[in-house]
Amino acid sequence: MGVSGCGKSTIGHLLSKELNVPFFDGDDFHPKKNILKMSNGEALNDDDRFGWLQTLNKLAIEQLKDKGCIIVCSALKEKYRDILNTNIKDSVKWVFLDGSFNQIKERINQREGHFMSADLLKSQFDILEAPKNAIKVDISLTPKNIVKVISKELSKKSEFGLFGLGVMGKSLARNLANKGFHISLFNRHVPGIEEDVAKNFKNEFKELATSLPFDHIESFVNSLETPRKIMLMVNAGKIVDNVIEDLLPFLEDGDILIDGGNSNYNKTKERFDYLKGKNIHFVGAGVSGGEEGALKGPSIMPGGSKESYKGVQPFLEAIAAKDANNLPCCTYIGTEGSGHFVKMVHNGIEYVEMQLLAEVFVMLKALGHNPDEIADILESWKETTNSYLLEITIDILRKKEGDDWLVNQIMDKAGNKGTGNWTTITTAQLGVPSSMIATALFARYTSFYKDERIAASKNLATKINTNFNVAIDDILKAYQFARIVNHYQGFKLIQEASKNYQWNLNLSELARVWTNGCIIRSELMVELVTIFKSTDNILTDETIIDKIKTLKPSVKKAVSECILNELPIPNFSESINFLNSFAIANSSANLIQAQRDYFGAHTYQRINDESNKFYHTEWNN
Amino acid sequence: MGVSGCGKSTIGHLLSKELNVPFFDGDDFHPKKNILKMSNGEALNDDDRFGWLQTLNKLAIEQLKDKGCIIVCSALKEKYRDILNTNIKDSVKWVFLDGSFNQIKERINQREGHFMSADLLKSQFDILEAPKNAIKVDISLTPKNIVKVISKELSKKSEFGLFGLGVMGKSLARNLANKGFHISLFNRHVPGIEEDVAKNFKNEFKELATSLPFDHIESFVNSLETPRKIMLMVNAGKIVDNVIEDLLPFLEDGDILIDGGNSNYNKTKERFDYLKGKNIHFVGAGVSGGEEGALKGPSIMPGGSKESYKGVQPFLEAIAAKDANNLPCCTYIGTEGSGHFVKMVHNGIEYVEMQLLAEVFVMLKALGHNPDEIADILESWKETTNSYLLEITIDILRKKEGDDWLVNQIMDKAGNKGTGNWTTITTAQLGVPSSMIATALFARYTSFYKDERIAASKNLATKINTNFNVAIDDILKAYQFARIVNHYQGFKLIQEASKNYQWNLNLSELARVWTNGCIIRSELMVELVTIFKSTDNILTDETIIDKIKTLKPSVKKAVSECILNELPIPNFSESINFLNSFAIANSSANLIQAQRDYFGAHTYQRINDESNKFYHTEWNN
Repeated sequence: MGVSGCGKSTIGHLLSKELNVPFFDGDDFHPKKNILKMSNGEALNDDDRFGWLQTLNKLAIEQLKDKGCIIVCSALKEKYRDILNTNIKDSVKWVFLDGSFNQIKERINQREGHFMSADLLKSQFDILEAPKNAIKVDISLTPKNIVKVISKELSKKSEFGLFGLGVMGKSLARNLANKGFHISLFNRHVPGIEEDVAKNFKNEFKELATSLPFDHIESFVNSLETPRKIMLMVNAGKIVDNVIEDLLPFLEDGDILIDGGNSNYNKTKERFDYLKGKNIHFVGAGVSGGEEGALKGPSIMPGGSKESYKGVQPFLEAIAAKDANNLPCCTYIGTEGSGHFVKMVHNGIEYVEMQLLAEVFVMLKALGHNPDEIADILESWKETTNSYLLEITIDILRKKEGDDWLVNQIMDKAGNKGTGNWTTITTAQLGVPSSMIATALFARYTSFYKDERIAASKNLATKINTNFNVAIDDILKAYQFARIVNHYQGFKLIQEASKNYQWNLNLSELARVWTNGCIIRSELMVELVTIFKSTDNILTDETIIDKIKTLKPSVKKAVSECILNELPIPNFSESINFLNSFAIANSSANLIQAQRDYFGAHTYQRINDESNKFYHTEWNN
Repeated sequence: MGVSGCGKSTIGHLLSKELNVPFFDGDDFHPKKNILKMSNGEALNDDDRFGWLQTLNKLAIEQLKDKGCIIVCSALKEKYRDILNTNIKDSVKWVFLDGSFNQIKERINQREGHFMSADLLKSQFDILEAPKNAIKVDISLTPKNIVKVISKELSKKSEFGLFGLGVMGKSLARNLANKGFHISLFNRHVPGIEEDVAKNFKNEFKELATSLPFDHIESFVNSLETPRKIMLMVNAGKIVDNVIEDLLPFLEDGDILIDGGNSNYNKTKERFDYLKGKNIHFVGAGVSGGEEGALKGPSIMPGGSKESYKGVQPFLEAIAAKDANNLPCCTYIGTEGSGHFVKMVHNGIEYVEMQLLAEVFVMLKALGHNPDEIADILESWKETTNSYLLEITIDILRKKEGDDWLVNQIMDKAGNKGTGNWTTITTAQLGVPSSMIATALFARYTSFYKDERIAASKNLATKINTNFNVAIDDILKAYQFARIVNHYQGFKLIQEASKNYQWNLNLSELARVWTNGCIIRSELMVELVTIFKSTDNILTDETIIDKIKTLKPSVKKAVSECILNELPIPNFSESINFLNSFAIANSSANLIQAQRDYFGAHTYQRINDESNKFYHTEWNN
């Protein structure tokens, strides 16, 4: 496209030879009445052009069924180009031959047998609306060079594809674009519900100017450099399999799919194996940080083959949050579903961190403080015990709606999206006592029975005289204690899974990836990076041992007072019960073994028998 | 078989015609040297007989490949019959023609052309060892009637088959036999490890005299009346599927398989559906009571189609324990895997009941009592709080080995067979906060890390001055309280599963089935039978409400004192934490919903908005 005399026909013919596709001059498709009008020296109006542009659009659609074509047409206005784009906007590439008024005037005058009035040319420049998404070429170059530039630009493909533009998908797309990557965006087309999502999104943010929007899968896939890198940001579950099946016909050997959703790690292993058989790489990547983290820098936990990871490493590491040493909060985790596994446990730890803050809220409320006062108290905790979740809790507690705090208006039924559930199931399956995660999950479940709770509160709650009396400092120390136990249990689950599945995970590196970008980032996590360099079991680390000893009197005090005052603090309570159950050389499990042997002849071992022999006793003789 | 002149040939010929199978006279198969010896008037010795009997055994094996045959042979000694039985003992039916010395002597003398000396006959009677497992027929009957009796006996089949003779299988088999049922017993043959298990077992117990032992599947199946009822008592898991596949080729439409093991209820549904497609009934029956219960009367929880249950009802109800009204502790539970589901939850409740007793043990030990003194204390609790598990705990605590109590010698690493694990997983999957089961499971898991526990006890346990001071009566009341919460949570899980899977379970009837025979039978269970007649939620029952109110001060006291003194009582602690979390109209889950909305835009509902609309807030503006 371009004004008359810009060289469209010349360049079009040369390009047609270069690319080996047919050439069409738009002017050859005018209907008789237009030709008549023009030969009478009359200018065409928009009504005249309308049918003609439709004809050209149909020509393009027809040619696209084969190998495409080159059409030259002045197409000066956006609305003309819209007609030409109808139904094929994802497939049309616009080339704008750009020159100044004087440059073109001179050219035309030099051509034999050609004449154009300066007025006519001027009028073309007046109505020209330069296209935004076209390949713009300066006509002062030689025709050969112009063709070279265009060919190069036409063959340019996106480096990375983002599939699924929900909250997280959009944020990651903008993050990639901000880092200078050329990306293709895809969102499905659902009539009346999701229409032009990718296009509208692209138009909304200037950083997406060079990105390509699609709602047609094949065009999306074809717009990507090979080996393709496509990140799926769709809801976990069956939909991931459906999307994979939709993409597969258009993928080639060596292409890389990244599942950035919260998929179950067992499913990720299944998909990894399935796609391996089709020579497609599959990276199951945990992504944490929520909407804001995804935009500004999330923590990313990619699992799969090391080779696959190398293909996507520059992209993932560029968009990830940076740690204190400016290293990306993204690292290769391990094979199979290990990336989604650690993300799952991350969320389990997160459930506990949230529940502990809710229980702190219970205690501080019981001391008579309002949300603003509690926010002030938590503000003072940031100095020693900061974390992202503590920070947002302070924001939440300060938020007012009229005279009341907004938190007071929120329905106290906690939802969940399944990862806490999976973590609880996994810890049960692997035989690991990560009991705080289960307790936090069940606290949410309990909250959900609101009607039964109201009935029970009438029947079963005791009217307690408010003699709950625990120093705020004891509550802080209890909170610090419970967080240590939570992190011990979470990493213990990861360590045991690593052994069980032979993933060979690096706990220190994992903690490092969690020091920024993710929901559970905290000062404690920073400390764990160092601690995990020398031990897999933080309860054997001297600084942790000292802390536990210092903090224990406070957690004992806080929990026992809560129980006496009927304050629900299941997670604090479990933190000290776990430690008491764990830090004991001789437990009461001997009685359980005796009971099992008594009624089920399950046999038992003996403490002083190194042979690990099994014994059975006739107990009732 | 029988002495010379008893009529073997006559009856054998008639029977051969009646049953339409070939007839063979054993005497026709003597080798030449034996015939020579006999014709010289010499008696055959055992060496002479050996090869001859082997020849007859080979003949029988050959004929069994077709439709079998009748062989007559005196076979007076057990050891001759053993040779004849070689490799085909399950398939051989012995018929013993029985008459007195005089009776036979007279007969022989009446026969034309026959003569046998009284001495020779006498010597036959001297060596005759009457067989134990033969069809014995009196020769004074007419030949026609003798053939009638034999035919009838030969076609007699067992009413019920027991597949798998482990601890539970053997006990159930003896229980069935004691109730007068004719049963067939099967146990696999594993050379050098499991040989003649069924036969040896049958010979060990006189109640099994009429039962038929097998280690050959086809013979076992063919020995059963149709429609066949076969109870599988094999280990849960893949082996159940293997056994089903082994049996299938020999089963017929309408036969009933009962899986009496602890199978996963999801698997039971799969097998139920699979076998339905093959016109075989499948009953997944939970069986509780351990070795002793299985023998004297277990609690049985059969699930499957109602029609299938009717086929096995007389057997299962006859062997089940009886409740206080002498009704069987066996009832049709519901369709699909519901029988195994309730058995699974039964075991979950059992885990908690055991863990609570272990924690009582911890507290009473901390008060300075030795196992005998603790047994005395628990003995006094029987009056108000009796249960099977309390009773066996008393037995266990009294058991001494030399000067020390045996319980002190038992390794404190608690094992598990998976049902507590499944219950925890299921309660997580169904969104039900049956938290005490999870806590009991994790207590066992924690106990298993013995080496880490020893290290932690050195680093992290505080040396407490023994100022643990809780009245024994408070411990009893705390125990009563925790048991109520445990039973609430267990039945709640069953109720929610019943709704979820549309099983329409009857909680009162289920409690009744658990009042005797099973491991969790108790006085509390007896009370629940009545309570569940008027409510599905025991926490709304007046008597339970009164109890909880009365007991709560004690559990608060006991738990808080334990925490201050670092005694591990995770399950007691969870019982009061659950109640405190549940009996509260406004919980702290509002803060969790705010956090989820803050970082994940998960939205929330509002307390005063009946429309259940979802809201999102930009919290940090």
